[in-house]
Amino acid sequence: MSFEVRSQPISATAFAPFGDLISTDGAPDMLINQGLCGRFHDLAKLDFGEGRAGISLFDAVPQTLPYRLELVERHPRGSQCFIPMSAHGFLVIVAADTAGVPGVPRAFRTQSGQAVNFHCGAWHGVLTPLQAPGLFAVVDRIGSDANLEEYHYPTAYNIVS
Amino acid sequence: MSFEVRSQPISATAFAPFGDLISTDGAPDMLINQGLCGRFHDLAKLDFGEGRAGISLFDAVPQTLPYRLELVERHPRGSQCFIPMSAHGFLVIVAADTAGVPGVPRAFRTQSGQAVNFHCGAWHGVLTPLQAPGLFAVVDRIGSDANLEEYHYPTAYNIVS
Repeated sequence: MSFEVRSQPISATAFAPFGDLISTDGAPDMLINQGLCGRFHDLAKLDFGEGRAGISLFDAVPQTLPYRLELVERHPRGSQCFIPMSAHGFLVIVAADTAGVPGVPRAFRTQSGQAVNFHCGAWHGVLTPLQAPGLFAVVDRIGSDANLEEYHYPTAYNIVS
Repeated sequence: MSFEVRSQPISATAFAPFGDLISTDGAPDMLINQGLCGRFHDLAKLDFGEGRAGISLFDAVPQTLPYRLELVERHPRGSQCFIPMSAHGFLVIVAADTAGVPGVPRAFRTQSGQAVNFHCGAWHGVLTPLQAPGLFAVVDRIGSDANLEEYHYPTAYNIVS
């Protein structure tokens, strides 16, 4: 038994309860390098608590739809930003929290050229590229204390589109 | 009049005086997500001084070779990391410092799947993608005080390869 979830195109507004959509929507905040480069400035709410910022690479196996979702996780001590190192969009799964438990998951599809930053404590699925290469730069909290909570849904969800 | 500079393939060792090469060389530091994702952990020496970390997007016009270099710059108060949001390599120009002045520039070519982090104070050329899209995520220092020094070479360099 499983429930079906359909993804929707990501937008900054729809994603706002969970994090930041990082994209080049609109005009750049400034033109630099003699006009040859647009800077879209300071697009994410980063939070590293008592830790520090780090940059890591995640090399993930691409997934196919329907994608069976049983597990979500969250990081209580820091934000986590996923930057695709390819021109492909990817699948982003999140869930609102109710008294410490994630609710029904929601699925978003990004477009080429978009990254996401999960806010501190936001429930989310693990990294789910849909095409190779599944390579992402990740900006998250480096620290020695525990920063991972996992939740297994009693019934799986199928992300069907 | 100009001088010629030939680029070389980037390597962590050759780039070390200027910053960090961020790549998936070797085995991942840990396997996460039930073995479906390799994490290459904490690959850059980030430094934001009295400021804070931010994530911005840079959308740069691709350049062609030979590339005429007259200007380099550096950020005395923070590191600056460039993450390509495409699977293309790009051109990275740096120069060693001698008593506050950059020396002869060096040029490196990255491969697909590599990012670079310029250390605080390292002289470097402006962002030079060689193919579209010239879109990069940039992790650098957000702060209100001056963090840019520019240097114009008296004679230009031509990056010819």
